[in-house]
Amino acid sequence: MSEPLYKRQRHPLLIVISGPSGVGKDTVLQRMKEREVPMHFVVTATTRAARPGEVNGVDYIFVSNDEFAEMIEENELLEHAIVYGDYKGIPKQQVRDAMASGKDVIMRIDVQGAATIRKLCPDALLIFLTAGTEEELVQRLTDRKTETPEGIKLRIATARKEMKRIDEFDYCVFNPEMHLDTAVDAVLSIIEAEHNRVTPRVVSL
Amino acid sequence: MSEPLYKRQRHPLLIVISGPSGVGKDTVLQRMKEREVPMHFVVTATTRAARPGEVNGVDYIFVSNDEFAEMIEENELLEHAIVYGDYKGIPKQQVRDAMASGKDVIMRIDVQGAATIRKLCPDALLIFLTAGTEEELVQRLTDRKTETPEGIKLRIATARKEMKRIDEFDYCVFNPEMHLDTAVDAVLSIIEAEHNRVTPRVVSL
Repeated sequence: MSEPLYKRQRHPLLIVISGPSGVGKDTVLQRMKEREVPMHFVVTATTRAARPGEVNGVDYIFVSNDEFAEMIEENELLEHAIVYGDYKGIPKQQVRDAMASGKDVIMRIDVQGAATIRKLCPDALLIFLTAGTEEELVQRLTDRKTETPEGIKLRIATARKEMKRIDEFDYCVFNPEMHLDTAVDAVLSIIEAEHNRVTPRVVSL
Repeated sequence: MSEPLYKRQRHPLLIVISGPSGVGKDTVLQRMKEREVPMHFVVTATTRAARPGEVNGVDYIFVSNDEFAEMIEENELLEHAIVYGDYKGIPKQQVRDAMASGKDVIMRIDVQGAATIRKLCPDALLIFLTAGTEEELVQRLTDRKTETPEGIKLRIATARKEMKRIDEFDYCVFNPEMHLDTAVDAVLSIIEAEHNRVTPRVVSL
């Protein structure tokens, strides 16, 4: 076997899936897990209550306000924010360990948090997920049965502002109703393409 | 039906598949055609003789030296070059017409020609195709049964120089022996990803 013509070092990607509340961030990630896409799915720490079916340590790391405060103090979070009254944060060591093992890392995060990740790590790969229409957002938030009418109103008003921040992202993927697998395929294409870039994204945390 | 949350204008891509001789540019494009990928495949004008099985107007536009000279004089070519003693050129109007109809346009072109396209059109999408090893290149060039030993030697020496120009490209895709469909999938992922970029490539010719 002769020498390869071209050697490429594989750099793991730090992938952020963001977008307004109700756009389907969790659903897209869930489908990627079901398809057994080989990457590390970040388990976010949160102080919010588990929704029906959510499992601690799998869907989120559910912690008390005190525990969350301690994580902040100990500088254990890559990023954290209050999202609709609940704290959410990305455990730093979890991300570092996964990337050190060579795995791509993917996380869902709100639009403001994505901007924070970009500042920390300019080479992060930021994907903005969007629904087809505002009505779809309202429908999805209603279907959750965990949001009050006021909560939905607040999320829609926020969504309108967040839509104006698309330019801060690298890619925008549509996740319209009934086309989940198309959205997942689009995300997977982006990840594959990014690994074939001549100038790779190099993430250091 | 309410207004879409986000409107995106679709910009057709100008896609260049390049790389050393024998790397499989024609084979990749051929497989894309077989898969009926919806885009315009540029038919290059050339003065070289048709290889067995090649069809005029489909694989290439085969022209005489005089006809080629006239195309140059009339400024009908986007780019042209002497490639291993034969003239090859990209008919400008063909590319313009396809893009005006909204289609992505894909063309195969040597490494020097790709650099010319980049100068003409900074937003062109340049993909460098590479084989696994130099031995593979030699094998493919030998299999053509149209290259002399001297011709193969010249192509390999050129390939070594061309490999150093990868940095001028956007993406690099491996096309190792027996993995043609993997290479084609990688090219298709790049194209899909590029259409989901927040900042699109905007080509004007």
